[in-house]
Amino acid sequence: MPSDRGAFITLEGVDGSGKSTQAAMLVCRLRESGFEVVSLREPGGTSISEKIRGLLLDPANAEMSDECELLLYEASRAQLVREVVEPALERGAVVVCDRFLDSTHAYQHGARGLPDELVRRANELGSCGVMPDVTLVLDMDPASAFSRATAGGQDRLEAEGLAFQQRVRADYLACAKADPARIRVIDAAGEPADVARRIDGALATASVLEGVSHHA
Amino acid sequence: MPSDRGAFITLEGVDGSGKSTQAAMLVCRLRESGFEVVSLREPGGTSISEKIRGLLLDPANAEMSDECELLLYEASRAQLVREVVEPALERGAVVVCDRFLDSTHAYQHGARGLPDELVRRANELGSCGVMPDVTLVLDMDPASAFSRATAGGQDRLEAEGLAFQQRVRADYLACAKADPARIRVIDAAGEPADVARRIDGALATASVLEGVSHHA
Ligand SMILES: Nc1ncnc2c1ncn2[C@@H]1O[C@H](COP(=O)(O)OP(=O)(O)OP(=O)(O)O)[C@@H](O)[C@H]1O
Ligand SMILES: Nc1ncnc2c1ncn2[C@@H]1O[C@H](COP(=O)(O)OP(=O)(O)OP(=O)(O)O)[C@@H](O)[C@H]1O
Ligand SMILES: [Mg+2]
Ligand SMILES: [Mg+2]
Repeated sequence: MPSDRGAFITLEGVDGSGKSTQAAMLVCRLRESGFEVVSLREPGGTSISEKIRGLLLDPANAEMSDECELLLYEASRAQLVREVVEPALERGAVVVCDRFLDSTHAYQHGARGLPDELVRRANELGSCGVMPDVTLVLDMDPASAFSRATAGGQDRLEAEGLAFQQRVRADYLACAKADPARIRVIDAAGEPADVARRIDGALATASVLEGVSHHA
Repeated sequence: MPSDRGAFITLEGVDGSGKSTQAAMLVCRLRESGFEVVSLREPGGTSISEKIRGLLLDPANAEMSDECELLLYEASRAQLVREVVEPALERGAVVVCDRFLDSTHAYQHGARGLPDELVRRANELGSCGVMPDVTLVLDMDPASAFSRATAGGQDRLEAEGLAFQQRVRADYLACAKADPARIRVIDAAGEPADVARRIDGALATASVLEGVSHHA
């Protein structure tokens, strides 16, 4: 990573594994350390991406084909990358994104069964070639994550059930094995503060914040 | 093409070249000949595709990146292919589509300058591998087409101007040269009935309707 570029950190994991909780805590710690931090979530993060998210989540669009769904996720991602992620990295900020292209692989390939090559090619297009410097996979048993998440109600994806989430988890772990330099598996069990400590350890090991500038 | 499959015919050409006019006339002739005909236009043709078309044409989305636009066209196409084109071809119908993947190549690569390989890979994903049996490129000088089209007002694409349309035309001709078995160039000058005769000649040469079943 060039020294005057920022850092791109993504959080991944099954539903309820604590991504949003840990992303918010990480953003807070990084800001306290003096970094400019841009906090994002997928799908969404720009006006156009939110409109696409609306199409994806609207139950009226139940007849959506797997390929259309995949390409809408990628369209939303491309807009986020070009409009927000790239400019932020160029000015030296740290970008923290709650889900990114590994979610598409885990859900569309791992869980729904679209071909690996198809999803990889779509991810290349949607990410516009911008890869995370480090990806934190919050790993835990989907049943435990499920009971965390359902404490606050249920949405469409959670309604897919446990076997679906097991396939998502397995795909995250397979991707981490295939790309250990980028993807770090974090034990997501225990108290939020314990998980946060593991994340800081992984970020230190990955040296991802070295050379990123602090505010004056 | 397997004998119990229908036929997939697409019309292409610069703005105002007469695609919609010729598509309507062709659909009429094919129905008179006893074929089941499904008449489509891109982007659109399904409820979800029309919603995506709404995002693409909304002037409020002026900040849309080239990649996002490309992927939205492909998402709209994938839905049209899976929901309408494939089922129609499987039951033996003739599908006539006003614009398809060659438009994406001509506009996004030829005119806007996105890399050829990028657009081709996106087209592969969006078409779900379903290629037209024959593509009719209605070829004419963009200035003449422009004067036809502006007789009825001006839209966003036409506002791009003549140099843009020249690049679109050049890309259509290059694609036709590279794939003469599928892409037929039709002289689009003259009266609608003259152009229609040329189209019938090209369809006969391409043998695209041989073996497609007629109604009882
Ligand atoms: N370490 C933890 N221990 C117990 N509960 C937690 C922990 N981390 C988060 N939670 C709670 O579990 C629920 C799910 O957490 P969170 O929303 O952060 O997960 P998520 O991975 O973002 O889920 P989703 O995939 O649905 O967006 C929330 O109610 C949150 O407060
Ligand atoms: N052969 C022709 N001669 C003269 N005018 C024509 C001819 N064919 C079509 N037109 C007229 O030219 C205009 C553009 O035609 P048409 O809408 O069919 O083109 P198009 O290729 O579908 O354009 P667009 O790309 O804008 O959809 C229309 O007003 C139509 O009536
Ligand atoms: Mg979340
Ligand atoms: Mg038209």
